Amino acid sequence: MLKSVDTVAGYKTYIDLIYPLIEGKKIIRSGMTQEVQRVESAIEAACSGSSCALISSGDPGIYAMAGLVFEICQTKEIEIVPSGSRSDKDALQIEVIPGVPAVCAGASLLGAPLTHDFATISLSDLLTPWELIEKRIEAAARADFVVVIYNPKSKKRTWQLEKAQQILLKYRDRNTPTGIVTSAMRQNQDVQIVALEKLHEADVNMQTTVFVGNSTSSRYLDFMITPRGYSKKYKINANR
Amino acid sequence: MLKSVDTVAGYKTYIDLIYPLIEGKKIIRSGMTQEVQRVESAIEAACSGSSCALISSGDPGIYAMAGLVFEICQTKEIEIVPSGSRSDKDALQIEVIPGVPAVCAGASLLGAPLTHDFATISLSDLLTPWELIEKRIEAAARADFVVVIYNPKSKKRTWQLEKAQQILLKYRDRNTPTGIVTSAMRQNQDVQIVALEKLHEADVNMQTTVFVGNSTSSRYLDFMITPRGYSKKYKINANR
Repeated sequence: MLKSVDTVAGYKTYIDLIYPLIEGKKIIRSGMTQEVQRVESAIEAACSGSSCALISSGDPGIYAMAGLVFEICQTKEIEIVPSGSRSDKDALQIEVIPGVPAVCAGASLLGAPLTHDFATISLSDLLTPWELIEKRIEAAARADFVVVIYNPKSKKRTWQLEKAQQILLKYRDRNTPTGIVTSAMRQNQDVQIVALEKLHEADVNMQTTVFVGNSTSSRYLDFMITPRGYSKKYKINANR
Repeated sequence: MLKSVDTVAGYKTYIDLIYPLIEGKKIIRSGMTQEVQRVESAIEAACSGSSCALISSGDPGIYAMAGLVFEICQTKEIEIVPSGSRSDKDALQIEVIPGVPAVCAGASLLGAPLTHDFATISLSDLLTPWELIEKRIEAAARADFVVVIYNPKSKKRTWQLEKAQQILLKYRDRNTPTGIVTSAMRQNQDVQIVALEKLHEADVNMQTTVFVGNSTSSRYLDFMITPRGYSKKYKINANR
């Protein structure tokens, strides 16, 4: 896929990660908070006839850049069609290529925390009012969803995770297994399982995803497990 | 990965899908509702010294078989360790390999419905009481999550999706864009976007994933978009 494009746009860290694969192509790289310019430049390149790949880590559709592509095309009233569709030749073709999001990569390292209903919530209040984030944490906690927390903490946002923990503790046992995965599948990968009451002591950053179990989740040895419910319905023989 | 294993276990449809890749290996295949036996057989094979791959479609950790593996090992008190760990040589090594779940594959075909917080809910009440499912739909609807519905309907479960729709309509506009993706990335793939009030008329089955937008989601041409909120914070120039 990358081979066939003329231009590659991305956050500088991700461009560096794949640089050996894209050497020689036109590159649009920019830093954090420059998302709008980066995506506008990528769309401009594509509209002027250059095929352009905009890269994200994980899955481009989960809290990532795919949304901004469509948001900008909509605002600018650019005519877009799904890639490969036979309609209007002048329209810009867009293809979103799904990937393995942090919620899946992290879960796989913890064991199986997501075998039942879950809610993902970003604690970043840069673009979302904190009141709405808090309302979502409360709702997910009350309805016994496994809760997956993205963007738990940054250098500037330091109090949100502890606040989320306090809300969750109103509805969950203090020993609820809580998985903390940092830099899943990358260098410096770190995987821990702690009790929910200890979450505020954990070392987390912007590369961390937090998994708070539901009322049936448990820890077994070094794994975190949310059962689907088979053992309630079918007999699992305790003997080997 | 598959090359290095002796035994492959899976639901018969998935075994058939990858059969050319696993010819000659020992195969454990079984049908729907035989999940417990299938996973028990896979664990038995692994415990007796055969390396065994248990396959799922999508991501094995999202409503899939990874959870049951751990559930059974826990019940039988089988000593398990993460694959590659240097501890006890007699322990069973387990590695969960993440994949692209239906929630990502489907979202990519719709555009970008998941750029903000979302909740995934299975409507299957075979293993979960309907009251809890309803409570989760209500909570997710009230707190304005994008709602992703797995297992919306089967031959025997026919009324749950319409009930879910009714709950969602208490909190969401009747025109809320709702994506319906069946057999994503497979033969017979089908992608539609309808208004929430029309969801009950849609053709859905066990291979369908439904995406109900939040209050900010919109439809633009053939795409469904949930904005992250950049356009509220940063100026997106409407001119090209």
